[in-house]
Amino acid sequence: MPRIHFQLQLAELKDKLLAMAALSQQAVQASVDAWLQRDQGLCEYVRENETAINSAEREVDDMAYELLSREQPMAIDLRFILAVIKINGDLERIGDMAVGIAVRTLGLLDHNPIDLPVDIAGMGDFTGRMIRTAVQALLDGDALVAESVRDMDDEMDRMNRVAISDLTALIQEKPETADQALAAILISRSLERIADHATNIATDVIFWVRGADLRHQLSLAVD
Amino acid sequence: MPRIHFQLQLAELKDKLLAMAALSQQAVQASVDAWLQRDQGLCEYVRENETAINSAEREVDDMAYELLSREQPMAIDLRFILAVIKINGDLERIGDMAVGIAVRTLGLLDHNPIDLPVDIAGMGDFTGRMIRTAVQALLDGDALVAESVRDMDDEMDRMNRVAISDLTALIQEKPETADQALAAILISRSLERIADHATNIATDVIFWVRGADLRHQLSLAVD
Repeated sequence: MPRIHFQLQLAELKDKLLAMAALSQQAVQASVDAWLQRDQGLCEYVRENETAINSAEREVDDMAYELLSREQPMAIDLRFILAVIKINGDLERIGDMAVGIAVRTLGLLDHNPIDLPVDIAGMGDFTGRMIRTAVQALLDGDALVAESVRDMDDEMDRMNRVAISDLTALIQEKPETADQALAAILISRSLERIADHATNIATDVIFWVRGADLRHQLSLAVD
Repeated sequence: MPRIHFQLQLAELKDKLLAMAALSQQAVQASVDAWLQRDQGLCEYVRENETAINSAEREVDDMAYELLSREQPMAIDLRFILAVIKINGDLERIGDMAVGIAVRTLGLLDHNPIDLPVDIAGMGDFTGRMIRTAVQALLDGDALVAESVRDMDDEMDRMNRVAISDLTALIQEKPETADQALAAILISRSLERIADHATNIATDVIFWVRGADLRHQLSLAVD
């Protein structure tokens, strides 16, 4: 019975982490939309949302610490809880990066958007997909899906490199675009870092699942 | 006796983390020097050093997991071990950022360094001081010293904002400097992010120490 209670608590911890993931993902989406539409309301939404993300982070951390200290979890559950703590930290930093994008956008609200050689919308969608896939891998405990996120990161790095090079060329050709082109470079860089955090999440899922697999195989061998 | 053994293991864990911190800090210093001197050898040193950082990270993580699963540590020790796991992650990412600086420098080795309105050397020293102070706070379990790192972060943010604004102005005035000025912007940004990681480390030290304090006060109250 206490064991069933513990499993229920682990499920609740997972739910809390998923709620946290939804908040971070919304923040990224909203910050990208804010930039694309130069929308002040969305910028402010992202900044206010940060408080909600920070409390969600604390809730997950508190519950994880409580489970660790009260329940003395076994190896597989221990690895899961440690993965949750690390993933939680990455989700919080994803939220921070979204705030950074919103703040940068706020600084350019009075500039008319110009045509820039960078697909911020596409990069935003791609990052969103990486976060969702990493979280899905966590839900399903699926190391293969988690691996696919790591492959996606290479594509994101490539998009960021191309964006920086194209935007630098534009600045050299038309220096009057420097403000906006530079903001786009820094936003592209932020999206690439958000993708890195999604990759960290995927790596923690692999650590959790493979650790469990390994242990499972060992116990089979011993049996 | 087993308790003394456990305390010795905690001390060993701390030593391993300090070795990890030394490696990350060296990487930052070397990457800044590599940029300032456009030194290919230093760039390669930073890239090779990454392997050492990654194994040091794994060693710390493995020992922390082992202690958690075998020793069922009490609350204060549990918080310490969790802080070590988080700090370890930040140190590894500091190493990553240093590699990023080195790779960016490698791309500009064939450009003669020009005079840029940014004090990368000063920012590098300041970041180094933040990492050292955060690690010292961990060594001494000193929340006040850790707080001081968080104050330093505001100064670092300010330096980065000034650098971005001055370098953007330069690019607008002299578009032919765009390559180098942009690299300097991204390096300034990386140093600012390294400072963020030092701040995360300081926050984890506070979490550990204050958690311990709080518990200590509670137990006094109960006594």
